Amino acid sequence: MLRTALACLLLAVPAAQAAADPAAAIEYRQSAYTVMVWNWAPLGAMVRGRTPWDQAEFTRRAQRVATLAPMLLEGFPPGSDKGADTDAKGEIWSNYADFSAKMQAFERESAALAQVAAGGDEAATRAQFGKTAETCKACHDAYKAD
Amino acid sequence: MLRTALACLLLAVPAAQAAADPAAAIEYRQSAYTVMVWNWAPLGAMVRGRTPWDQAEFTRRAQRVATLAPMLLEGFPPGSDKGADTDAKGEIWSNYADFSAKMQAFERESAALAQVAAGGDEAATRAQFGKTAETCKACHDAYKAD
Repeated sequence: MLRTALACLLLAVPAAQAAADPAAAIEYRQSAYTVMVWNWAPLGAMVRGRTPWDQAEFTRRAQRVATLAPMLLEGFPPGSDKGADTDAKGEIWSNYADFSAKMQAFERESAALAQVAAGGDEAATRAQFGKTAETCKACHDAYKAD
Repeated sequence: MLRTALACLLLAVPAAQAAADPAAAIEYRQSAYTVMVWNWAPLGAMVRGRTPWDQAEFTRRAQRVATLAPMLLEGFPPGSDKGADTDAKGEIWSNYADFSAKMQAFERESAALAQVAAGGDEAATRAQFGKTAETCKACHDAYKAD
């Protein structure tokens, strides 16, 4: 009953304030990662030869990843280390300059991936996929619990 | 135990096949809507005067909505009317031509919104917000259960 009332209240809160709600921020960032992984996984499948190489499809999905990357950081406002199930480590907020630098590295490399893929060179695309994946891993290794 | 085994199995399934998994598709599309609403809500707040008008911020978030819109349709593969909690009505798949036409209308109007907002004309932006919102509503009225 109280939960329902709270949920209704949250729906009525303007977005700018809702951004300060840790559970909403956690849901937002987890959703953004889910949409990203949905588009990233087919790239990995092509790189590993599990599905046929398709430069146009690679480009289309790499562009999506690149547009999603800059949406992530705002999903980690102060205080959103708890409030819902999350794998985000507390170190994100105690070491925020490094966390945001790692996020910016991912933004930069994924933007480069979309650009290189659009150029049509498969070998260069594969190489840039590797560089981009390293920026995912660097952030996950430092700041993701699982 | 069986659920865990199944979950691990799903992780190992190549993305192209995972797309055929109804629960994964439902999670994907719901995540895409969550990310979209996170970015759409501040537009509505500005239009309704709940937050100050900010053309640059409006444009930035409208562009995000426009890039997310074309990601939605692939989240509704045949068979994904069940498999996880979903508000998607069965009519989506029995009337798919109309559903996809309504989705395309949203893609078109949200792309126009991003373009108009970038042009800097507040009145035109407000008008195009209304036209875009109508395409949201048209689809929800016909195909969303709640």
